[in-house]
Amino acid sequence: MARFEIYVTYKKGIFDPPGATAERALVNLGYNEVASVKIGKYIQLEVADGTPTERVREMCDRLLANPVIEDYRIETVGEA
Amino acid sequence: MARFEIYVTYKKGIFDPPGATAERALVNLGYNEVASVKIGKYIQLEVADGTPTERVREMCDRLLANPVIEDYRIETVGEA
Repeated sequence: MARFEIYVTYKKGIFDPPGATAERALVNLGYNEVASVKIGKYIQLEVADGTPTERVREMCDRLLANPVIEDYRIETVGEA
Repeated sequence: MARFEIYVTYKKGIFDPPGATAERALVNLGYNEVASVKIGKYIQLEVADGTPTERVREMCDRLLANPVIEDYRIETVGEA
């Protein structure tokens, strides 16, 4: 199996509701040192050996991320 | 500002609904090379300089992760 890790984040300027909620909640809990919280997705993907990154990019564009509002970064972790 | 990145994943053996849904959807779209999809959270945290990792761990335990069903890993990214 080949392993990839994908980091999905909101594009710059797009409102991040879970991040904003967590940020406010942390400050309310007394964590005044918190300046910003952004919450994205951390996807661990296992695919058949030899699957090219291009194919994983296609999966991201079609299903795993929303290219309109999200950016993503793909990292090859290696064979598992 | 000090920056931390937190990776939240389901504990081994805990069912991962978003991952299972994405896995089935990818196979339905024809990506038969997909063996497993796990979806966790990727949190980017900015806090005041000098905030110790221990304090970030406390935020994870109290709010950012659910220690009953999730594991998390904290990485120090450095000053921003």
